[in-house]
Amino acid sequence: MTRETEVAVTFRPSGKTVYVLPDTSLLEAAADADIVLDQPCGGMGKCGKCRVRVLGNACEPTPTERESLSEEELRGGLRLACQSSVCGPIAVEVPETSLLASRHKILARATQTGRPPGDPSVCKRYVELSAPARGDDDPDLIRLEKATGPFRIELELLRKVPGRLRKADFCGTAVMADGLLIDFEPGDTRTELFAVAVDVGTTTLVAALLDLNTGDERAVASRLNPQTRLGDDVLSRILYSRETPDGLNELHEILIEAINEMIGELVEASGVRRGRIYEIAFSGNTTMQQLLCRVDPAPLGQVPFVPAAGRGMLVRTEKLGLHIHPRGRAYVMPVIGGFVGGDAVSGILATSLAEQHRPTLLVDIGTNGEIVLFADGKLTAASTAAGPAFEGARISRGMRGSSGAIEKVVVDGRLRINVIGNVPPVGLCGSGLIDAAAELLRHRLLSPEGRLHVPDELPDDVLPDLAERLVPHDGKTAFLLAAETETADGKPIVLTQRDLRELQLATGAIRAGIGILLRRAGVEPADLKSVLIAGGFGNFIRRSNAQRIGLMPSDVDRCRIRYQGNTSLAGARLTAVSRQARTMAEDLARRTEHVDLSTDPGFQTAFADAMIFP
Amino acid sequence: MTRETEVAVTFRPSGKTVYVLPDTSLLEAAADADIVLDQPCGGMGKCGKCRVRVLGNACEPTPTERESLSEEELRGGLRLACQSSVCGPIAVEVPETSLLASRHKILARATQTGRPPGDPSVCKRYVELSAPARGDDDPDLIRLEKATGPFRIELELLRKVPGRLRKADFCGTAVMADGLLIDFEPGDTRTELFAVAVDVGTTTLVAALLDLNTGDERAVASRLNPQTRLGDDVLSRILYSRETPDGLNELHEILIEAINEMIGELVEASGVRRGRIYEIAFSGNTTMQQLLCRVDPAPLGQVPFVPAAGRGMLVRTEKLGLHIHPRGRAYVMPVIGGFVGGDAVSGILATSLAEQHRPTLLVDIGTNGEIVLFADGKLTAASTAAGPAFEGARISRGMRGSSGAIEKVVVDGRLRINVIGNVPPVGLCGSGLIDAAAELLRHRLLSPEGRLHVPDELPDDVLPDLAERLVPHDGKTAFLLAAETETADGKPIVLTQRDLRELQLATGAIRAGIGILLRRAGVEPADLKSVLIAGGFGNFIRRSNAQRIGLMPSDVDRCRIRYQGNTSLAGARLTAVSRQARTMAEDLARRTEHVDLSTDPGFQTAFADAMIFP
Repeated sequence: MTRETEVAVTFRPSGKTVYVLPDTSLLEAAADADIVLDQPCGGMGKCGKCRVRVLGNACEPTPTERESLSEEELRGGLRLACQSSVCGPIAVEVPETSLLASRHKILARATQTGRPPGDPSVCKRYVELSAPARGDDDPDLIRLEKATGPFRIELELLRKVPGRLRKADFCGTAVMADGLLIDFEPGDTRTELFAVAVDVGTTTLVAALLDLNTGDERAVASRLNPQTRLGDDVLSRILYSRETPDGLNELHEILIEAINEMIGELVEASGVRRGRIYEIAFSGNTTMQQLLCRVDPAPLGQVPFVPAAGRGMLVRTEKLGLHIHPRGRAYVMPVIGGFVGGDAVSGILATSLAEQHRPTLLVDIGTNGEIVLFADGKLTAASTAAGPAFEGARISRGMRGSSGAIEKVVVDGRLRINVIGNVPPVGLCGSGLIDAAAELLRHRLLSPEGRLHVPDELPDDVLPDLAERLVPHDGKTAFLLAAETETADGKPIVLTQRDLRELQLATGAIRAGIGILLRRAGVEPADLKSVLIAGGFGNFIRRSNAQRIGLMPSDVDRCRIRYQGNTSLAGARLTAVSRQARTMAEDLARRTEHVDLSTDPGFQTAFADAMIFP
Repeated sequence: MTRETEVAVTFRPSGKTVYVLPDTSLLEAAADADIVLDQPCGGMGKCGKCRVRVLGNACEPTPTERESLSEEELRGGLRLACQSSVCGPIAVEVPETSLLASRHKILARATQTGRPPGDPSVCKRYVELSAPARGDDDPDLIRLEKATGPFRIELELLRKVPGRLRKADFCGTAVMADGLLIDFEPGDTRTELFAVAVDVGTTTLVAALLDLNTGDERAVASRLNPQTRLGDDVLSRILYSRETPDGLNELHEILIEAINEMIGELVEASGVRRGRIYEIAFSGNTTMQQLLCRVDPAPLGQVPFVPAAGRGMLVRTEKLGLHIHPRGRAYVMPVIGGFVGGDAVSGILATSLAEQHRPTLLVDIGTNGEIVLFADGKLTAASTAAGPAFEGARISRGMRGSSGAIEKVVVDGRLRINVIGNVPPVGLCGSGLIDAAAELLRHRLLSPEGRLHVPDELPDDVLPDLAERLVPHDGKTAFLLAAETETADGKPIVLTQRDLRELQLATGAIRAGIGILLRRAGVEPADLKSVLIAGGFGNFIRRSNAQRIGLMPSDVDRCRIRYQGNTSLAGARLTAVSRQARTMAEDLARRTEHVDLSTDPGFQTAFADAMIFP
């Protein structure tokens, strides 16, 4: 049995429990629980922003922690998550101020821009009107406007308002979305004001239910994008929509159905009424957003890959078949180009990329790798077809970062793996894949060209535990991560030569894209203030391993590489809770220059170079 | 045969021919042809605004005309329409500058307000875009926006635009309605830009097709409001909608069907393509507008008679079932109160009532009589249930002012009638009814209380021709206008005691309403700069007769009473061709005080008094 006895770490107030290898940092354990802590210093223990309180047996404080925290704080269980490790089963309380994207920080940012904090598009006004009488015979809507201020209204609701006003004795709650009256609800319903933010990934869908009064997240749901069964990357889906009769409708409808099911899960988990969800903010790549809206993606499948719309779209959810409030609305993010979509705009928005003072790079690793550079006040963006390797697709035993996924692979004398959910493994997610490849390179089982050595080619000093894991698989050599006796399905989990080629392609494409953007802007990797890594591809990427396989430039100080979590979802959240964020998103999309890597004369060379592991 | 040989008068450029009695003024003949001439002096021959050119045998010029026109002008056939009469068959050319609501005047008014002339909500932009290419890969809508300026777009059209752009090689015409892109048409279609203006009367529907590039009217259609068969006034229709299963839908649908048929007539008459009509502007009373939009009128049927909306509504015509451009829009006028609707707002707008320098009264005579007073910068409005007598309903042989209607009744030695269209008469329209009653009063066949004398009560000196016309009818005395040998259907056309009671009620209600509004504002009839009479109730009302029956105050100088034509239609036209007019309409509706006559303590007395003919 190669698996260590994993240790349970429970986070409060969320109550989420993860199982991690002993010695895992609290920062990484938190990331496993989808809690992204702030770490402006890059996890060096210098900024003190990631402080958490350990309930139970905390590890001994490190010297760095002693510098940052007082004796009394340490006695009270306070630790720096980037420094403190897991020694045994513990509970960890995470103060909201330590979160990367805390409500306070979002609101603070909104305040900096001079706008009132918490300014969602949808708002409610409770009114108590006098009933009409002789000499007080204003039209119903004018009576209402005198209390709420002017609004627009659609015919469908106009037909209902007079009856509703009378039934409710002219007291109730007006629901307004950007100056459009979308409902008049009897009684005072102001506390029930919800929206959903959705990251529409090529491979993964994530939805969060948000309380617009507080900005709090009330529930989260995620699942595989069901379109995956019709093609596992955007180009294959564009092809499907073009060449299959009714293919576009099919792609659209299975996506909508999945989102409706997720909304059902959110509603069930939170107890919130579906009719009190008034908006959904969507963020995804250009193709996903067009499929969501049933806009033919054909022009995205051929040179020069042109999107239909550039600006964000406001659409009645009813027209998309989405089930929230009957007059609810969907906001779909603006896009930059055919392969730099709303998800990239979300990333720029959520990371405040355009507010940095020194060159900063944002790399969103999904089925496509989107790369955005901010330097000298200019935003440039490019996209690479990374492929779905990091999300588990096209990898023989690949899977999403969910229960049963090997998410961490460590070699210290022998191979150790960590499995999400403390269950027997069923596959390998993106972070586990990077770890495994990095360890194979480090221990010389893998050549820089990406070839897995056969056992008799191995150097003599290779660890026996690793050497023994080079096993025949389908007539070729593969690397065994978990034997059939250890796995949930009784089949071995191996890493094949083909899996490693997929990883090489994905890594090379991103690395080459980074290189081109930096070169065009005249920025050296060492000049970068930070490299922000985003993506919902599983879990915490170990930066040293990302550099080892060449995904991240090796000449960037490791502490400058910072994990940002799912910035596509974070951007969608921001636009759901703040009109100001929506305006900013529109502006960012239009001012970002779109670089078509395939037309860059240096790209093919850079790609070929980047395919070689450092 | 009591009918004179009528004389044909043909107007140019419209080509319309009417048949009038000899000695009819050209002003009146023009009104018969739906041509409303400007006459700021009230038809006294002083202002010279109503000049027309008579082709053929013009009457000798009057001394007044000799003062106004040069010898050369007179020789060229120029006459003042208010002074010159019809002597024999003639053609009359009407310069556009002599029209009350000429395009030049509308545009001049728009210019006075500082806005560019001719500023319809719908406009077109022809664009020739470069096709996308590598390095020029803007989203389609951004590419279009760079040529047209920013616009909004609905999902339905967004789905079509990329295909259309490519099919049209990126050249075509963008159709914009208030900043919303509603179509992209291949080729240059700028010359084809049309709207329809509709007066939705309780009894009569009138629709005009307008060329938005020039403001010109291209065709007109009118017909009976088909709802009439379900109730001949607004209250009976509100009752019908409340008490009949599916009654509201039925009322809505037969109206929409009639309007669609009228649009069909406009399209056929003009050769304009239906898909090039982008907007319809509607003006009607509050109940008609709510039935048009299928908004339950129930609250309009009970105290305090409250409308649903106050502001104008912009609705997709598709949602109303109207067939113009598939993404066309309907603008429905703002309303003032439950019985002072969009037609009254149209009247205020079209007559520039709120721009007068001295107290001015506007009386719109339809199934309801709407009265608006402008005095001391304030607008007050009231409505009276005049009933449909002036539109021919509830009158035994009543009819609209269309072919076969007796529209003029004159007694000079004997009774003479004029019939619209020079055909045997089939009934009596509003102006004929007023004429007949006035003549009966003048010749003492009718008592001030409204009782038709029986033959043996008549004074001795009554004209024999009139005395002989008092005939028994259904067991009572009636007045014979046309014997069965003279009519189209072989049945006599009589005026019954009941008809005269209906007229008395209608007249009394309007007269009382005028009295109350004047009293509340402290304005004496003699202070009125002018009384503007509007309504599509048939034809030219002879002012002396309107005063004789008490419809108009007798202490207003006759030349101050001015006929304005169908101002409801004129207002709808203005809002179709000018955004500025739409803004003005919204403003006028909100600043007009609505007076509920039924709550005025003096109304019942005033009504009873006004029922007595002067």
